[in-house]
This record gives sequence, structure tokens and C-alpha cells, in this order.
Amino acid sequence: MRIAVDAMGGDHAPDEIVRGALLYRASGGAAEVILVGDPARLPAPSDGISVVAAREIVEMGEHPGAALRRRGGTSIGIATRLVRDGHADAVVSAGNTGATMAAALLILGRVRGIDRPALCGMLPTTKGGPACLLDAGATMDATAQHILQFARMASRFMERVHRIERPTVGLLNVGEEPEKGGRMQLEAHELLRGAADLNFYGNVEGRDILRGTTDIVVTDGFTGNTVAKAMEGVLDVMTDGIRRDIFGGALGKVAAAVAMPGIRRFRAHMDYEPYVSAPLLGVNGVSVVTHGRARARMLKLAIDVAERSISSGLIASLGVAA
Amino acid sequence: MRIAVDAMGGDHAPDEIVRGALLYRASGGAAEVILVGDPARLPAPSDGISVVAAREIVEMGEHPGAALRRRGGTSIGIATRLVRDGHADAVVSAGNTGATMAAALLILGRVRGIDRPALCGMLPTTKGGPACLLDAGATMDATAQHILQFARMASRFMERVHRIERPTVGLLNVGEEPEKGGRMQLEAHELLRGAADLNFYGNVEGRDILRGTTDIVVTDGFTGNTVAKAMEGVLDVMTDGIRRDIFGGALGKVAAAVAMPGIRRFRAHMDYEPYVSAPLLGVNGVSVVTHGRARARMLKLAIDVAERSISSGLIASLGVAA
Repeated sequence: MRIAVDAMGGDHAPDEIVRGALLYRASGGAAEVILVGDPARLPAPSDGISVVAAREIVEMGEHPGAALRRRGGTSIGIATRLVRDGHADAVVSAGNTGATMAAALLILGRVRGIDRPALCGMLPTTKGGPACLLDAGATMDATAQHILQFARMASRFMERVHRIERPTVGLLNVGEEPEKGGRMQLEAHELLRGAADLNFYGNVEGRDILRGTTDIVVTDGFTGNTVAKAMEGVLDVMTDGIRRDIFGGALGKVAAAVAMPGIRRFRAHMDYEPYVSAPLLGVNGVSVVTHGRARARMLKLAIDVAERSISSGLIASLGVAA
Repeated sequence: MRIAVDAMGGDHAPDEIVRGALLYRASGGAAEVILVGDPARLPAPSDGISVVAAREIVEMGEHPGAALRRRGGTSIGIATRLVRDGHADAVVSAGNTGATMAAALLILGRVRGIDRPALCGMLPTTKGGPACLLDAGATMDATAQHILQFARMASRFMERVHRIERPTVGLLNVGEEPEKGGRMQLEAHELLRGAADLNFYGNVEGRDILRGTTDIVVTDGFTGNTVAKAMEGVLDVMTDGIRRDIFGGALGKVAAAVAMPGIRRFRAHMDYEPYVSAPLLGVNGVSVVTHGRARARMLKLAIDVAERSISSGLIASLGVAA
């Protein structure tokens, strides 16, 4: 098993990406890791770690399409081609999500039977364990049929990679009642309710996501992306507020020292690193996207997800009709 | 000036609603307040406070349409009819938002030139001052033309009621670049950019809402409602976490005592009560919706918003074409 890692993608590339790959190997990871990037900035090949040169890098703010058309070949483009050509079984990137998706779609193509790809936004829940919010931004104008496909793909992913039996599926909506929502949601509700292979719970609301009301929350890519970023915004504002208002200043520092065990508990509850990495579902190969902020530990966990996606036969399970 | 208050609507009705009305009067409010509800549970009329009897109440979880068809007349239905018939200049409710909207639409009708109503979700920003996220749930399948109307109505509202000159308008989207989003967003971006009477900033993302990047964030009612509830969900989870993990237990209580001035600062920064109430925009009369959790202070502030909406001629300003 071989996993190509885009060594140049992410806020802390390449150093933290390399450290993550070494951590994965040191922790007994079963796959060989192929680091794709600038050899001058990468370590020499070692046991279970090889290097493939890529001269160009896609910057975080760059337009994905333009980036992939660059002559020299970008690290994400080359890493994805390794999968297409059978030199690797999966690609992992903390880089520009748009470019990772574009590379996967253009180079790997779609799984047969799947019309549009979907990105899992993985979140921790107060119930414990992860929830998958999808589509988190791959397909903007999703139809009800696409939503049904997303729900099926996410169910296979949660079963195989997170080992949740018969994961529950909620349709993101403005209310619990089946008659809520716009035209697309009404139609999607009907399709999901009629799908015997899904464990459909019904409609869920935005506040259910973190509660873990269902294992999977399905929506279109526009709503999913907007909701995920809005939630991240609240998290940032709250975290800043706690740091500045409550624990800032002399008195705050004393309080923080006293509260330290509690602060550690709080951080542990909010820890999403074990879940945040997820494959782009619907492309014909394992392409795992992780957070741009990823440091070594998160990168290591992303390689774990890629490994489990390969070994569980995730991709082959996705296109199977109900 | 007379303002009809649905005395039976909200989690803390009627006692906190009545207290809010008395607070409004005691603070020098210019309008007379008409309390609409069960006379047995309301105070006797006094200076500037009158009572209109309504036998039925719409419960918080009730279907709005069914509720409004009830024979006896609900408190929200009767209060809204007072506006239609010229006995009141505005209606204020902390009750079932769907029922308040349905009553306003059915009884007051729409403003000429406005095709669909929109609800303002009012939020505090880290920049200071409020932001208006609309539509927060009135119109599900909004078109780009509706979005343009929403942006115009919100601009008038922010100018007249919150006294913000040339309020900036952002289109909620998955990225800042003009080519982002689905079909509706692309079309709405063009329309907003071409509207000379709007101070259009461009696209904004979910995380911009609380940052106050723009005074107004415009989107369809499905996305707006879902985003608002998801943000509320994060807030609830974080607040619970702070209370339980950080300040729970013996050591946590000591930390909380030390950190109390900071906790007060934090609460003051998060205080959205002065903004949360907003009129339903696009209906032909002032119908102010406030949070179901409203207690006396929030209700008083909602009556203030109704008063400013009336005195500033908000409704007459909404239908005027650009």
C-alpha cells in the first residue's frame, strides 16, 4: 500500500507535513509514504518514505483551474497522477481544497453511478464521536438526486472508515417537519425516506450538527460550505473572547492557572483533529483532504484515514446501486 | 403612536412580556402599548397600557397556518389585525416566528413592489454594532431578484432604525471571488453589483458575519435560517463547555470567582439583546419579531425597534423603486 502526500500543501508545509509522514511511519503505519514536492526542502528517502519531485506549488488563495494548468506540474497534480497511474493507492493533501478537488475530478474522474462529488466536513459532537456534514463545498447546485447519492456515499464512508453500523442520516433543513424547506429539500426528503438502504432519521436543523443527532447531515455544497464556515467563525470569535476577555490581564492569568485542568478538558472535548480528514467522495480513487492548518499530528491522522479508506475498499463500495 | 404586543407569545409569556411593556413605558417610551391576550393573566389597563382580549394562543411548535385558522382568534392574529384596521401602528411578538410571519403576510399583505418578505437575523459583531443577516427564514426558494429586494429593504432598515449611513451589503457565498457560488449567487452578484442605490461590498463568507465585514449579509431564507441555527448551536455548545469543563467543579468555581470581571466583559461583548429584534421586511405594516427566549429587557428593546420603525417611516421607504 502506497500513499502519496502533497508535501507542499498547507499552511505549515513542507516541515509539518514531513513530520506528519514520519510520525505515521513511526506509529507503525502499514503504507509506504511518497512525499511529493521540492526535493531540496524534503528529507532524503528512508525506510518506507520515498520522494517524487514536483517543481510547482498551488498557493492557498490560487484559482484551482489555473493552478492545475501550469506547465511544470504542481505537487497536488503529480501526487494525484500517481494514483491514476497505479503508483499510489491514495493521495493526501492539506493544501488548497479547490485544487485538490479539481485535480481529483480531472485526473481520477468520477465513480461510475455517481453524478457529482461531495466533500465531508467532519466535526466532533457533544455526544462523542464524529459527525459528517456533506457536501461541504464540492457541488454547488445539487439536486435531490445528488443529495441521495451523497447520503449513500457518506453512509459507506462512516461504516467503513469510522466503523459506525447503520449510520443515521439527517437532511439539513429549517425545521423537523417533513414539509419544511424549499423545493429541493422537499424532494430530497421524499427520496431519502424511500431509500431502503439508508438509515434515514428525517430533517435536522443547524443546531443538531454538533449535538450528533445524526451521524451524517446531508445538504448541498453551497449550504454545507457556508454553514461550516459560519460555525468556524463562531468558534473563532468565542475562542478569542475567552482568551482576551476572560483570561486576559493579570487577574485573568491567575484564573487561567487555577482553571488549567478544566481548560484542558474543554480543549479535549473540542478536539476535532482525529476526525477532520476525509476523502472527497465520488471520485475514482482515494483523495483525502485535510485542514490547511494541519500540523504533524493532523497530517498523520489524515494518512490513517487514507489507509483505512484503501484497506476497507471504500471506493469500490461507493458506486454500487441500492 | 400605538404598538400592539402579543402578550401570550414567547417562552416567558405573559409575565415577562408584560414586564417588558411596563419597562418600555417607565423608560419614557413614546407609544401607547396594547397588550393582546388573556385578560385574566394580564394587568388592569393603566396609563399608556391598554388590554385587548384574545382567547387563543399559538404554541411555539404549532403549525402557523393551522393556528391562524382557529375560530376564536389568536393573540398574534388579533394583534396583527389591530395594525391592519388602523388601531395600532405596529405589532411586536416573541411567539412562534412562523405564525407571526403568516399573520403578517395574510393580514397585512405585502408592500407594493416587493415580491417576497424577508426576516432580519440581527447579530452582534466583533467590530462593535449589529449586523443584519437576511433572509433568516421567510422565503425558502429565493431568486436573485428577491435577493436584490432583500438587500434594498435591509439597507433602508439599517439606515433608518440603526442609523448606519450607506450600510454595506455582502452576498453570502463560498468565497470572495465574484465567480463563486451556484447559479443563484452568480446572478445575484451581478444584480447587486449593478444596483447604484446599494453600497455593495461583494461576496462574504460565513465567517465574515460575526466579524462585521459588512453591515448586511444577504442570502436566501433557507441558507440564512440554517446558518443562523448552526451558529446558535456552536454558541450553545461552547457556552455549555465553558460552564461545565472550565468553571465546573470546586477548582473551576474558584477560577470563576477570580475571572468574574472578565466573564462580565465577555458577556457584554456577546450581548445581542439590543439588536435581536427586527421587523419582518416586505409586509405592509410594522411587524417586529423577537426571540422566543425574550425576557422583559429584550421585549422592551423590541418595542423600541417598533417605535423607531414607525417614526422613521420605514415601511413607506421599502417599496420605493431604485
